[in-house]
Amino acid sequence: MARETGKKIRYAVIGQGYISQAAVLPAFAHAEENSQLVALFSSDAEKRRELGEKYKLEHVYPYEDYDRVLRSGLVDAVYIALPNSMHRDYTERAARAGVHVLCEKPMAVSEEECEAMIAACKQHQVKLMIAYRLHFEEANLKAIALLREGRIGEPRIFESLFTQQVEEGNVRLRKELGGGPLPDVGIYCINAARYLFGTEPIEVSAFAASRGSRFREVPEMVSAVMRFPEDRLASFACSFGASSVSSYRVIGERGDLLVEPAYELAGTLIHRLTIDGKADEIKFRKRDQFAPELIHFSQCVLEKREPEPSGQEGLADVRIIRALQRSIETGRPVSLPPFERVRRPDMTLEMRRPPVSMPELVNAAPPSGK
Amino acid sequence: MARETGKKIRYAVIGQGYISQAAVLPAFAHAEENSQLVALFSSDAEKRRELGEKYKLEHVYPYEDYDRVLRSGLVDAVYIALPNSMHRDYTERAARAGVHVLCEKPMAVSEEECEAMIAACKQHQVKLMIAYRLHFEEANLKAIALLREGRIGEPRIFESLFTQQVEEGNVRLRKELGGGPLPDVGIYCINAARYLFGTEPIEVSAFAASRGSRFREVPEMVSAVMRFPEDRLASFACSFGASSVSSYRVIGERGDLLVEPAYELAGTLIHRLTIDGKADEIKFRKRDQFAPELIHFSQCVLEKREPEPSGQEGLADVRIIRALQRSIETGRPVSLPPFERVRRPDMTLEMRRPPVSMPELVNAAPPSGK
Repeated sequence: MARETGKKIRYAVIGQGYISQAAVLPAFAHAEENSQLVALFSSDAEKRRELGEKYKLEHVYPYEDYDRVLRSGLVDAVYIALPNSMHRDYTERAARAGVHVLCEKPMAVSEEECEAMIAACKQHQVKLMIAYRLHFEEANLKAIALLREGRIGEPRIFESLFTQQVEEGNVRLRKELGGGPLPDVGIYCINAARYLFGTEPIEVSAFAASRGSRFREVPEMVSAVMRFPEDRLASFACSFGASSVSSYRVIGERGDLLVEPAYELAGTLIHRLTIDGKADEIKFRKRDQFAPELIHFSQCVLEKREPEPSGQEGLADVRIIRALQRSIETGRPVSLPPFERVRRPDMTLEMRRPPVSMPELVNAAPPSGK
Repeated sequence: MARETGKKIRYAVIGQGYISQAAVLPAFAHAEENSQLVALFSSDAEKRRELGEKYKLEHVYPYEDYDRVLRSGLVDAVYIALPNSMHRDYTERAARAGVHVLCEKPMAVSEEECEAMIAACKQHQVKLMIAYRLHFEEANLKAIALLREGRIGEPRIFESLFTQQVEEGNVRLRKELGGGPLPDVGIYCINAARYLFGTEPIEVSAFAASRGSRFREVPEMVSAVMRFPEDRLASFACSFGASSVSSYRVIGERGDLLVEPAYELAGTLIHRLTIDGKADEIKFRKRDQFAPELIHFSQCVLEKREPEPSGQEGLADVRIIRALQRSIETGRPVSLPPFERVRRPDMTLEMRRPPVSMPELVNAAPPSGK
């Protein structure tokens, strides 16, 4: 066991965009029990210098050194926070070097890429985890628990919004990098519907719309409907051209749970639970959602356990994103074939709580760079 | 002018279901300035006796007497609160008797029926108004004003929920009477999207789902997406098989307006307006939404003006409901042809306020009958 042996998993963080600077790099301070930041990669010499200094790292590299450094034995694992279209390549190269992979979501831009990543990690016997931070976040874990306990009765309807303004020049507006509101923010709504209902959708339909020159390559927004087993329906809207909203609601036969904010990286998440007409509000203090991911992944590597959220979980969302994109392209609903997905045994408070600490968030200031 | 001459429009209320007992009959006490309840119709002798006594009416009739009473000159107008499938017949018969028609929504079960109702009222020179109570309700009028003033910037996304439990035996579960969640509660979401965006949808798509024996004839629930001009999207879910929720949200480029409860007949409606990240809550006291309708319609009859919401407004929603039903039946999105709809000049606070009083609600107890 990590805590017993004192052994720590040594990480390199790949890509120094917003998420790395705002969340991943600072999280290592809360994951010291089994995780250590030893290196970072960036194409930007200025970022390498600044961040290397800030985190007291002697190992800061441009991407050209990726294979060499990974093969040198300096790191045990990489945290991949690159544009979505680069996830597959950097995952496969890490796997070939025998380095474990914790990869940002969406896992990749197609099912084929996800499957190739899963196969490469299996072949080279490295662990692969997809960084769904909300699988380690108390308000969301508690929401799952409430539904499983039947507090709102049989869940019938899921509805969600995740919107924000993304300005011209942001990489998330570039199609060839795998950008767009569906893979970037819509994935939260899709993942939430799946973890709250605990099943996989069987049919999806979506409309997209765009206004303004920012949205030349990716749509401004998408509104979607998803049909789930047990005759449940889910709908959501996601956007890069509207004011910030993040919420979801599950309406059951005798009550409903509204979570808002629901998906925030650094905010107080709030439940409003209404049962038989009586409403209660529960606030969840903001906590570091990334440190628990690091701790869990390191623990899985050390104990040779399969991490969760797995590559299968990443693939489950990517195939839905692709189905929604096909629906937008063809103007027709798209049926999804059955997908055997183990019901995330780890994504419960009971499983996450004992091994995974949930430290208070101390550093979530926006980064200086992008 | 009514207030000058003292003349009042004499009404018969047709059908004594929930809405009549909870709202229409009590509203006359707040509409005395130009409206008078003189008769009611019901097939139920017990209801006729009880309600006749309660409202001190000497004229209570079974439906067999409808044409005779209307032709007798006893009433100037009818308020039709019958099952949706009976709206057309009772409207046409009133028109032929020269009696003005204030008809509950949905106006009818098909576009053809709506057009026949409009034609009949035009031919016999009687006024026709559709009873959209929220066109006379302050929180909704204020929401329109906020959007028109550009408070949240350019509106981009509309999202709404209207769900409730409808128990076995309720007429709203019967298809041949025009029941179902889309015409009964979904119409509020459709109408709100239209009055908030101020335009007509051009394409719609919907999924329906049902669970349980209650929903043999009509679906339990519908989730829908609607494409509007100016590249806006709207989505909503409505249900007869889930706990009560009524809300809508419009997200603009720099803020959003959440109204919840949004559609309640007798409740405090609440705005949560967020602009540039700053949130404000505004509560609107519950008021009689029906008396202002009566006052406005009576005034239009007395002044020989066209009432609003007109038959065209009723038709605008029915054609969307029908398109959504076709989408459910065919499993395909449905395009809507252009629809010339005057932009409801009356549906603003300025237009509604001076002539229409908004009395506090004193009697909104649920009725004894159905």
